[in-house]
Amino acid sequence: MSEAASKVISLAVIPGDGIGPEVTAEAVKVLTAVTKDSPASFDLTEYSLGAEHWLQTGETLPEETLAAIKGHDAILFGAVGAAPGDTAIPSGLIERELLLKLRFNLDHFVNLRPSKLFPGVASPLANPGDIDFIVVREGTEGPYVGNGGSLRTGTAHEIATEVSLNTAYGVERVVRDAFRRANDRPRKKLTLVHKHNVLVYAGKLWKRIVDEVAPEFPNVAVDYLHVDAATIFLTTDPSRFDVIVTDNLFGDILTDLAAAVTGGIGLAASGNINMEGTFPSMFEPVHGSAPDIAGQQKADPTAAILSAALLLHHLGFHAEAERVEQAVEADVAGRSGQARKTAEIGDAIAAAVS
Amino acid sequence: MSEAASKVISLAVIPGDGIGPEVTAEAVKVLTAVTKDSPASFDLTEYSLGAEHWLQTGETLPEETLAAIKGHDAILFGAVGAAPGDTAIPSGLIERELLLKLRFNLDHFVNLRPSKLFPGVASPLANPGDIDFIVVREGTEGPYVGNGGSLRTGTAHEIATEVSLNTAYGVERVVRDAFRRANDRPRKKLTLVHKHNVLVYAGKLWKRIVDEVAPEFPNVAVDYLHVDAATIFLTTDPSRFDVIVTDNLFGDILTDLAAAVTGGIGLAASGNINMEGTFPSMFEPVHGSAPDIAGQQKADPTAAILSAALLLHHLGFHAEAERVEQAVEADVAGRSGQARKTAEIGDAIAAAVS
Ligand SMILES: CC(C)[C@H](C(=O)O)[C@@H](O)C(=O)O
Ligand SMILES: CC(C)[C@H](C(=O)O)[C@@H](O)C(=O)O
Repeated sequence: MSEAASKVISLAVIPGDGIGPEVTAEAVKVLTAVTKDSPASFDLTEYSLGAEHWLQTGETLPEETLAAIKGHDAILFGAVGAAPGDTAIPSGLIERELLLKLRFNLDHFVNLRPSKLFPGVASPLANPGDIDFIVVREGTEGPYVGNGGSLRTGTAHEIATEVSLNTAYGVERVVRDAFRRANDRPRKKLTLVHKHNVLVYAGKLWKRIVDEVAPEFPNVAVDYLHVDAATIFLTTDPSRFDVIVTDNLFGDILTDLAAAVTGGIGLAASGNINMEGTFPSMFEPVHGSAPDIAGQQKADPTAAILSAALLLHHLGFHAEAERVEQAVEADVAGRSGQARKTAEIGDAIAAAVS
Repeated sequence: MSEAASKVISLAVIPGDGIGPEVTAEAVKVLTAVTKDSPASFDLTEYSLGAEHWLQTGETLPEETLAAIKGHDAILFGAVGAAPGDTAIPSGLIERELLLKLRFNLDHFVNLRPSKLFPGVASPLANPGDIDFIVVREGTEGPYVGNGGSLRTGTAHEIATEVSLNTAYGVERVVRDAFRRANDRPRKKLTLVHKHNVLVYAGKLWKRIVDEVAPEFPNVAVDYLHVDAATIFLTTDPSRFDVIVTDNLFGDILTDLAAAVTGGIGLAASGNINMEGTFPSMFEPVHGSAPDIAGQQKADPTAAILSAALLLHHLGFHAEAERVEQAVEADVAGRSGQARKTAEIGDAIAAAVS
């Protein structure tokens, strides 16, 4: 992780579509407030990208824009994508050509997704227990590489393939990162989630790497679960988890489920992290663009604000990050049934950290 | 589905490992009891297969055994597999060379997994609502085809691949089956679960086939969810589901989660069905062999007994199947905290259907 050396942080802001701009505005508000009296300050550059932008320009992520984004210290990302069933935009185009393109081109190999049940937040589980774990999802390989194709497309004889690519290089760096994070946590427990009884080759690679890295972290206890069994424990005994490390697709599935059991994706933050620092890391709420409630100040900006806290941690401003996290925790603990506007929630948290 | 024509049903029984033999014995007990005064009776042939058998003989599923199994009307399957972490048996060998080999060779393209929250059963969800849906999981394609490999295996330069194969032929037959089942249910709702924004080619094929088959079933409402979002709804609003159709891997994951929210895999039944009747269908509890509690009469045989009910339905003995289902429902409703032995549960249900 970078040091808190630089005072002016050059931040790319990609608000995106739907509720993205609304929640991002609150995250920026909180970032500004919490750094008011700190050595850090933000120099913001906004990039207009997403489904709306594509409809207007036909551009997803031009090479020059990508190059410009690479020049920043970090990226704050809102949400992108059209409404489900929207036919004006090819399905998944924006997700792949913008969001995944950023994750892959900026080599965001650690997709970090903390799951914590905050006091006062209702879980759909009857007995949630103490939920506080992180998922370290691989971000640059697996079934997400876009290595698929089809033959006799559109006919009764079509064959469609999707190839999951997994490399020792890619698995090792994310596994080592997960071990490090587990080693830094009080419980020091790492659970590898895969499906090695069926996905033999990829599964064997993941297991081998975990076995090889484990001796470097003698204090970390290692566990293994098949992905199907992991979903059971996430609903029946989520407090058994401390750090989960898993592949891109399993991580996608497990983190939505984890968000659900900890009160919903309105609270789930994430970081797409390039741990080598070769390119800027990107922080985004796990939720999507929710076009149905966009522009109405109905969205909960908490996930975006917690993502901004991850950004602060990543840049080395741990004290500021913790102030944001504590303010969020206090805010959610005090929430009544009454709905507040997006900006009201942001104002309250910004005031608490100022 | 076959008619209730034949009186003597030739049944292959594969008890397997761990708790498999115990729960299968109870399922056989109930099948015998419920057909006592009915036109059906069972001619049982037991096959010794599984991890234990492999340790003794080195055989997983010899061709002659497979050929013999093909000659039966149906198969009752217990559970197979060694304890996790067992090193005497190569990881996943029995699962792939026996269980998956049966599913693939007998062309079990419909992996049917009902999820129902029975009255009196505790769900881990605080507000489970009315849960009563079925998952129609594709059983012969997808990432389960065993089409993977590795290069520079065991080195720092290893590359491991897993290929998901999807065909219009394979997708269409399972999608049509799911539509039929949805059409036969009161709510008539079908939800396709995939991840077409990332797995573009396979996803496009699944969507196209659903769109093409839909006009044949004008009364069925069609919905779509990404797999990650589906896990959220399974924990926050499971009653929204009626029939889910999905691929082999997503179905594996979703049905364990579905079993969890409906009270656990001790109650989850499944059928591996060859709807064309070219080979016998196979009925098995979703749970595994649970070696830790094997031989102690601690296992709950309910999932195996409910799988036997699915077998009766499949063979056209609907009245008998419903008697078993009702007896199970009454039995679980009356369960107190006190643990009963495996055979006691089987005895009680067998007595209720006699
Ligand atoms: C939008 C989609 C491509 C993305 C993913 O699958 O990674 C999302 O679900 C997420 O989890 O960030
Ligand atoms: C044992 C394993 C191969 C199997 C599967 O993945 O299909 C099991 O999890 C199941 O769901 O029946």
